[in-house]
Parts: sequence; C-alpha cells; structure tokens
Amino acid sequence: MTAVTSTIRNGVDTERMFATLDLIKDQPELARFQFRATNRWIDGAHNRSTIQGFYAAGGEDTSRSEGFELDAGEPAILLGTDTGPNPAEYLLHALAACLTTSIVYVAAARKVQLTSVESTLTGDMDVRGALGVDDEPRNGFERIGVTFRVAGNAPAEKLHEVVERAKRRSAVYDMVTNGVPVAVEVATP
Amino acid sequence: MTAVTSTIRNGVDTERMFATLDLIKDQPELARFQFRATNRWIDGAHNRSTIQGFYAAGGEDTSRSEGFELDAGEPAILLGTDTGPNPAEYLLHALAACLTTSIVYVAAARKVQLTSVESTLTGDMDVRGALGVDDEPRNGFERIGVTFRVAGNAPAEKLHEVVERAKRRSAVYDMVTNGVPVAVEVATP
Repeated sequence: MTAVTSTIRNGVDTERMFATLDLIKDQPELARFQFRATNRWIDGAHNRSTIQGFYAAGGEDTSRSEGFELDAGEPAILLGTDTGPNPAEYLLHALAACLTTSIVYVAAARKVQLTSVESTLTGDMDVRGALGVDDEPRNGFERIGVTFRVAGNAPAEKLHEVVERAKRRSAVYDMVTNGVPVAVEVATP
Repeated sequence: MTAVTSTIRNGVDTERMFATLDLIKDQPELARFQFRATNRWIDGAHNRSTIQGFYAAGGEDTSRSEGFELDAGEPAILLGTDTGPNPAEYLLHALAACLTTSIVYVAAARKVQLTSVESTLTGDMDVRGALGVDDEPRNGFERIGVTFRVAGNAPAEKLHEVVERAKRRSAVYDMVTNGVPVAVEVATP
C-alpha cells in the first residue's frame, strides 16, 4: 500500500509554504515587502484606488498583469451617491479578510482541514467626531466586534487555538488594534 | 443682477451638509452609526465580504438595494492565486479613500473648488512577523507613507490647511494611527 499525501490543504500548498518559511529564515532580507495603492478622486465621495505592483523578496513583483480597481463612496445619509462601500466599511473588510486568511494558513500548517470560515464584523461610530460637530467622540470606530463561525475536522478546542494563533499573526489585526505611524505629505501646483 | 449660487461644490451638496451638521448638533443621538461586513472563506487566500446594511440616524438604513461584494486574495509569492487585493492593500485603500473624501468634504465646506486629488500610499512590512518566522518584526506595516497631490482654486497654503483639517477628521486615519479595540468571538459546531 502506498500513502499518497497531497501537500494542498485548505487550498494552500503547504510544501511551498514551509519552503517559503525556510527560505525567509535563511535570508531574512527577502522578508522586506512594500505594498502600495494609488487613489484618484472622481466626484463627491467617489474615489478609486488602483492596486497592482509591490516589492517582495528582493525585487519588484510583476506577476499581476493588470491592477485591481476599488471604488469607494458614501451612502446618501453621508452625502454620497453610494458608488462603493465607504472607507470605514473597507477597513472592516480588510480586517475580516486578513483574519480569515490567517486562520486558513494556520489551519493548513497545523493539518486542520477547514470546511467553512464565516465572520460578521460590526464597527460602532459616533459620527459627530468625523463630521467635526463635537471634539469629544473619536473620529473612527469606538470598537469593532468580530464573530467567527469556524468548522473543520478538528475538535472545537483546536479550532479555537487556530483562531487565537491567527489573531497573533494577522497583519491587519495588528495594525487596527495597535495603530501604525502614518506620514502624510502634500504637494500643490 | 441676481447671483445664483449652486449649493453643490466638489460634488457635495453643501446645503444638505450644513443641514445635517445642524440636525446632529441638535439631536446627538442621531450620530450613532454602525457599519458592518460579513465575510466568507472561498478557498486558500480567497475570501469575499458582502457589505450592505448599516445603522444610521436612529434606524436601519435600507437605501442599498443590493450589497457590495469585495474579493480578497494573495499574490503567488504569498501562496495565493491573486483573486483580489490582499488585506493589507485593502487597508491602504481604506486610508486613501477616507482621507480623500475628508479633503473633498472639508474643501466643500470651506468654499474651495478642487480640480484634482490624487494620492500614492506605501506600506512597508517585514513579513517574518505575519509568517511567524520571527517574533521581533511586527505583523503589520512598520510605517505608511501617503503623498497627496491636491489642486484647486485656492492658494497652496489653504490647500495644505484643508488636508491638515481632513487628517484631523478622517475616521480611518484615526483608526489606523491610533488603533481600535477589537473583540473577537469564535463559534464552532
């Protein structure tokens, strides 16, 4: 009898994953990445980002033949025409996506075959802050709530451990909970 | 001679804007908003958020007849199949979009007619953190750089003031620079 074991788990090639981790352990300079977005105002609350190139593993990545375009907007109550999710909703999506991918990768590494990962995120905001009506409420969400429903071929305890580990490794969870230094420069004609 | 002054500036209805601000000043309870996203894992690094309903101004908003769908992914070098921007890139877009809309709204309120607002954002990351190879680098961006190019019918000094005020009122800029408490709950079958 021959055991044929696929290296693909949860859609992640674990053999390539472990090879990547080994490579980065050996050559930490390959871990320097830079992601980018360019944005252009269209009208009112409507603006559009283009996301394509990034720097990774010692060089400019050229694997994307075209860019992704993302349209932002605001609903009517916030003076827009609903041309896309609003920026705060995009932040919720960024957080959901990062935690989910982290869960999927951690589970793949730990031999947990997932069957479903779903989440609901809520962000509570007192818009007096962002609208400049009152200085007391902060501009952003006061709190974000995330509820995950995770199923797979592992006991509940192990699934909880996977989520816990994913939280401790998620790039966006780190940024949203701890903050990031942001430098803004402005050029005018 | 009759002066006909449009209340629309930069695509923003300033009359409605000031009416909204007055209303919220009078009834601060109307300023309670809740935004939401639901996310579902598809395969590997591919997951999708749906964004539709939100709570605003004392009730559930029903103005969106259908939801927005956002696909996230990772490029090949991060073990995905490039099914969408990655979560960290979505965060850059959220920040770009929020600062841009804030600039446009602040300019509208201050009678500055903008002709263009463009930005480039970069986020530098040592992926050893998120990949769990080394505990020293943080998981998220070490820093984010934003460069705005803003043009309109005002002197450079006033355009700089508009951007400065927009930074001080942007919801996502607040969240990304200062962080937000995030509570994660997990349900398993």
